Amino acid sequence: MSALIERLRAICGPAHVLTHEDPATDLSAWEQDWRKRSRGRALAVVRPGSTAEVAEVVKACAAHGTAIVPQGGNTGLVVGSVPDDSGTQVVLSMTRMNAVRAIDPENLTLTVEAGCILQNLQDVAEKAGFLFPLSLAAEGSCTIGGNLGTNAGGTQVLRYGNARDLCLGLEVVTARGEVWNGLTGLRKDNTGYDLRHLMIGSEGTLGIITAATMKLYPLPAATLTAWAAVPSMQAAVQLLGLAHARLGPGLTGFEVMGQFALSLADKHYPQLRVPLFRDTPASAPGRPKPDAAPSGGSEPHEVGSVGAPFFVLLENSDSENEAHARQQFEALLEAAMEAGCVTDAVVAENIAQARALWHIRESIPLAQAEEGLNIKHDISIPVSRIPAFVAETDALLQREIPGVRLVNFGHLGDGNLHYNVQAPEGSDGPAFLRDWEEKVNTLVFDQVARFEGSISAEHGVGELKAHKLPTYKDPTALAMMRAIKHALDPQNLLNPRKVLA
Amino acid sequence: MSALIERLRAICGPAHVLTHEDPATDLSAWEQDWRKRSRGRALAVVRPGSTAEVAEVVKACAAHGTAIVPQGGNTGLVVGSVPDDSGTQVVLSMTRMNAVRAIDPENLTLTVEAGCILQNLQDVAEKAGFLFPLSLAAEGSCTIGGNLGTNAGGTQVLRYGNARDLCLGLEVVTARGEVWNGLTGLRKDNTGYDLRHLMIGSEGTLGIITAATMKLYPLPAATLTAWAAVPSMQAAVQLLGLAHARLGPGLTGFEVMGQFALSLADKHYPQLRVPLFRDTPASAPGRPKPDAAPSGGSEPHEVGSVGAPFFVLLENSDSENEAHARQQFEALLEAAMEAGCVTDAVVAENIAQARALWHIRESIPLAQAEEGLNIKHDISIPVSRIPAFVAETDALLQREIPGVRLVNFGHLGDGNLHYNVQAPEGSDGPAFLRDWEEKVNTLVFDQVARFEGSISAEHGVGELKAHKLPTYKDPTALAMMRAIKHALDPQNLLNPRKVLA
Repeated sequence: MSALIERLRAICGPAHVLTHEDPATDLSAWEQDWRKRSRGRALAVVRPGSTAEVAEVVKACAAHGTAIVPQGGNTGLVVGSVPDDSGTQVVLSMTRMNAVRAIDPENLTLTVEAGCILQNLQDVAEKAGFLFPLSLAAEGSCTIGGNLGTNAGGTQVLRYGNARDLCLGLEVVTARGEVWNGLTGLRKDNTGYDLRHLMIGSEGTLGIITAATMKLYPLPAATLTAWAAVPSMQAAVQLLGLAHARLGPGLTGFEVMGQFALSLADKHYPQLRVPLFRDTPASAPGRPKPDAAPSGGSEPHEVGSVGAPFFVLLENSDSENEAHARQQFEALLEAAMEAGCVTDAVVAENIAQARALWHIRESIPLAQAEEGLNIKHDISIPVSRIPAFVAETDALLQREIPGVRLVNFGHLGDGNLHYNVQAPEGSDGPAFLRDWEEKVNTLVFDQVARFEGSISAEHGVGELKAHKLPTYKDPTALAMMRAIKHALDPQNLLNPRKVLA
Repeated sequence: MSALIERLRAICGPAHVLTHEDPATDLSAWEQDWRKRSRGRALAVVRPGSTAEVAEVVKACAAHGTAIVPQGGNTGLVVGSVPDDSGTQVVLSMTRMNAVRAIDPENLTLTVEAGCILQNLQDVAEKAGFLFPLSLAAEGSCTIGGNLGTNAGGTQVLRYGNARDLCLGLEVVTARGEVWNGLTGLRKDNTGYDLRHLMIGSEGTLGIITAATMKLYPLPAATLTAWAAVPSMQAAVQLLGLAHARLGPGLTGFEVMGQFALSLADKHYPQLRVPLFRDTPASAPGRPKPDAAPSGGSEPHEVGSVGAPFFVLLENSDSENEAHARQQFEALLEAAMEAGCVTDAVVAENIAQARALWHIRESIPLAQAEEGLNIKHDISIPVSRIPAFVAETDALLQREIPGVRLVNFGHLGDGNLHYNVQAPEGSDGPAFLRDWEEKVNTLVFDQVARFEGSISAEHGVGELKAHKLPTYKDPTALAMMRAIKHALDPQNLLNPRKVLA
């Protein structure tokens, strides 16, 4: 193997090929997955600085029959970007390729290298007066290459789509070490098969994304956030329909949170002061009164009564101004109260309050971890069937595991639930996971299949769920996937055993 | 071959298998392409009534090694859906499979069979209170299966994307005659390679689309149309940027038309009364005065002076109401006049006027045909580079062909130009085509390549442009396309010689 290492050092420079030969080198940042579910052992971590170097690295590995694991920020949640424990796989870390190659304001495009941190894209776009809308919890450390490799979702999908929908062109190194220059900034190009969408979401198993041309959008003039208590999941779905009809493309966020999910945030982070959650007196009776709202106050303006099984966070991005956004939002909430699908609501008075509302939503996974171990799911269901799915699956789980607690939250606007199963109060977390994880996964995934949903909405397959696809994926689709993998990577060198076990 | 015909008749019923054996049967509707550039001869035209029948037809053809040409409304523009002249290919006409399978208002989805006429989808959606936004000239006869097979574009791409962007799920019969049930209505599904996007735009060469689940949108509360004279293509690009910034997602149409293109409409259809085109007196001085506009008048309200090298049609779809849309539109046009990128503008006062403006835009191809033969292109270029592309390419062509006339119009918001080359006035049309078509195509496509554009923006490849891909497509991309075709259709039975010559 040292011939390969020598060759890799010749290609990228010795400083950019890290191995276990040097006992002082700690490779755990590249070998350990984000959720610490798996620890691999790499033959080497290679950090190329250019597309040409990536191509040479792939050719060298192909000549030695050595597998390559492409890696961005290594923040994935399905064990998709770490090597196995054989010590024979090369981790190809893309983080040195982080240049912004071009910004084209008139074409509304940004061309960046795969190792660019997502937050950097957002910042570059904003400095130029535009919005790059992809946004998710790991944005400070994940890379756009990883976002595209996994087709990341996040909080703005409702309006702007998943990562794939924001991408116009790709530069990719193939399994043969050839460079496909598909870095187009075109919104229409019907000259053959859409290789871009095939590469996006293939988790590094069909090619290595080295650069991408992404869409920019006009910055909204104002973004407002509201928080509504709803009497049922069905009411949340009804509110979503009203919000679509009244806000149109202004609706950029629609998150649902179950009462128990919020109770964990309330318990472990009381300083967050979850609105409408405890028996705090409401500052206005029954329905929104926009004229009476104090502006710029330090608390969101509460406008109704308290206590609800579900809560919804709504975001309205307006291309005019804040007053217009507020008027639109308050008319929506008023109509929703009249229709009975909202019992209570607050609209954030300023950006700090809006951030605080989003922060509550984003604190749920952390609060869950504080509470103890749990079994996570990232599923999607047609929006219309979510109420029945939740009611049925809750009941099935409660019958199966007395005292089980369901942490239900997610991007309802996209039909995407993080439907997590927490051990009964006071129970032994590790024992719960050991005894129940497989059974609970099967029960939940079987339900997802019954409701025509997906067992991985936005996180991908990786190694974690690869063995589930033969059960839950259409067999004809799976056969086509295998045929395509074999056609584009006949040696099975690119991220083997991810996606297709 | 009669064994195959017998088998096909057994599968679909004798009435749905048409052949030349019966001399009274005229197959020209299936054998002749829309633009009458190519006339094939089919072994048979088969009209299956169900997905199961399609699968059986494919299996029977595969067993006989007989090629299949899938066909929808046969309105394609690149000879992609007609058989060759060998008399050995089966045309698989999907028009009998035209059921609306389901509409799900809460999930905002519509599931239809491939043979559904596009206009029927629009109507079904509107009756349910929603918008299905795909819209193009052939909508009265093209099918959604054909729209997806070719990834159709049209007039609403700016806001809603191409056909692929409107599709959530597919049902496909593979080259082996297996059925992939991918009819999901999910907005997020990261369980493996995106076969949906691979099938869409593959022009029936990788599988046969039998049904699709499409996205619905809220109906806009009001849609307004404006017509603006602009002093240059660069000014049109500047106006586009202003429109994006001010209307945000309300901007649903942005079409550009060159002076010569409009002069043909004006000459051959004087009854259309192209606004701002002749020296008609303007009804208001210099800039929009919304308050002074007579409402519901029979003429668009003209608001400026006359004569310009380019004109722009803008469409603004508003989720509030018409007054709001008008105010937004007029503020935009006022700002554009101040910035100098609009010299004159009218806003349609009512739906009839709006339709009349779109009708002028859509009459350009017909007016062109009245004027005589011409060489058509359907190209895309990054928006920012279009002014330079047009100036340079116009100059090159005029140097090469003295007196040549350039009919330039298209979806500028998408970077998509129908850049057509008309014979010099009074010249012999057929001689012009014979002498110049190949040379002009090469000159224009070479320019497109220099400007990083696409030689087929929305029409596809078909047979017409298949031989151009080796010159203009990235060779690595082309090699991957061939590998995928071979993997999914090893016998090359599905629409052979289309896309990949």
